[in-house]
Amino acid sequence: MNLVDLRLYAIVDPERTAGKTLADLARQVAEGGATLAQLRDKLSDTRPFIEHAKAVQAALAPHRVPLLINDRVDVALAIGADGVHVGQTDMEAADARRLLGPKAIIGLSLKSMADIEAAPIELLDYVAIGGAYTTTSKETKTPPVGLDGFKTRVAAMRARAPGMPIVAIAGIDASNAAGVIDAGTDGVSVISALSKPADSVAAARELRDVVDAALAKRGRA
Amino acid sequence: MNLVDLRLYAIVDPERTAGKTLADLARQVAEGGATLAQLRDKLSDTRPFIEHAKAVQAALAPHRVPLLINDRVDVALAIGADGVHVGQTDMEAADARRLLGPKAIIGLSLKSMADIEAAPIELLDYVAIGGAYTTTSKETKTPPVGLDGFKTRVAAMRARAPGMPIVAIAGIDASNAAGVIDAGTDGVSVISALSKPADSVAAARELRDVVDAALAKRGRA
Repeated sequence: MNLVDLRLYAIVDPERTAGKTLADLARQVAEGGATLAQLRDKLSDTRPFIEHAKAVQAALAPHRVPLLINDRVDVALAIGADGVHVGQTDMEAADARRLLGPKAIIGLSLKSMADIEAAPIELLDYVAIGGAYTTTSKETKTPPVGLDGFKTRVAAMRARAPGMPIVAIAGIDASNAAGVIDAGTDGVSVISALSKPADSVAAARELRDVVDAALAKRGRA
Repeated sequence: MNLVDLRLYAIVDPERTAGKTLADLARQVAEGGATLAQLRDKLSDTRPFIEHAKAVQAALAPHRVPLLINDRVDVALAIGADGVHVGQTDMEAADARRLLGPKAIIGLSLKSMADIEAAPIELLDYVAIGGAYTTTSKETKTPPVGLDGFKTRVAAMRARAPGMPIVAIAGIDASNAAGVIDAGTDGVSVISALSKPADSVAAARELRDVVDAALAKRGRA
């Protein structure tokens, strides 16, 4: 398993930059304290996707923030990204691991209890669990399970794989981030709360402070 | 350069099977004499795309028809396809060659004279040139250049790379295939003319006969 710092996991998406360039958005979140970044690009053709990935990679490099690519192992390979994040309809983690090798970071989205039970934990460096809050960033067919349902999912994952890093995803901002950390996760994965504010540096800094404080509090408990 | 038989290059697409299963369509065109096949899937998520690719690969295997994947190097790598076909907005041929290795078949679509002049011929095993006829299978922004314009393009490619295999694409059926072979190409790439008929074996056999006859006539000329 590769070490991965999930505290503030910024997802950047060319459709959701709120008028910034994608590179500027990536630079701002890195400057504000993002510990990991993911490029999600569901509409571009492969060539512009790769161009986007290169621009984000260059923006992150001075801050040494690793870059994962959503879904597309080909794009990750083409630019030499640090890994991929895959969902339940993306490439199987086993294929991604075989193609990317042992040093790539591979994360998997878990949407249901069945996903949690079936996750190929030996192949993964982290998992993403959603459902605590309502997201506006992604069309989703499943309504949120709420914070209690979310805690049940996190506990089920911990029961299966005690050491597996878990990032909370969907609908998280500075006002509710402490709740998902208190539920036992290692960080938050965020799109809108970082991209929408005009100053994404400040937005990242604020969110990172909330996460760090919640983790410190849990560490003392 | 890898040897590639372009005489009847069947493109199969899960959106265009005319009610057949994708595997049945692939099996039928192979049985009817397809010499090369490509899976194009512009709508599926990566996991079902890979499932489609495995099904087509299994259907083609008894006929030893090589399978290329449109655009997606990750899918090609995941299933061990014979290569990829890329367009002008897909991954650069240089990246595809680096990721797939020297034995992969890599073909490139050339849409304009500028594309023909810029094609990285040293990286390619064949090129596809369109524009002779009007296609109904693909949304395209460029109107056909007609058979004379097509001949000019083929000649320009031959001038740059005399030995480069060239396949004609777009709007080709048994009634007009001889025209593009006479224009100097090595074969035809076809979707609708093979997939739409109820009997795709017969459709492939008919088209293959037309191509073989036109190539034989040119050989004697």
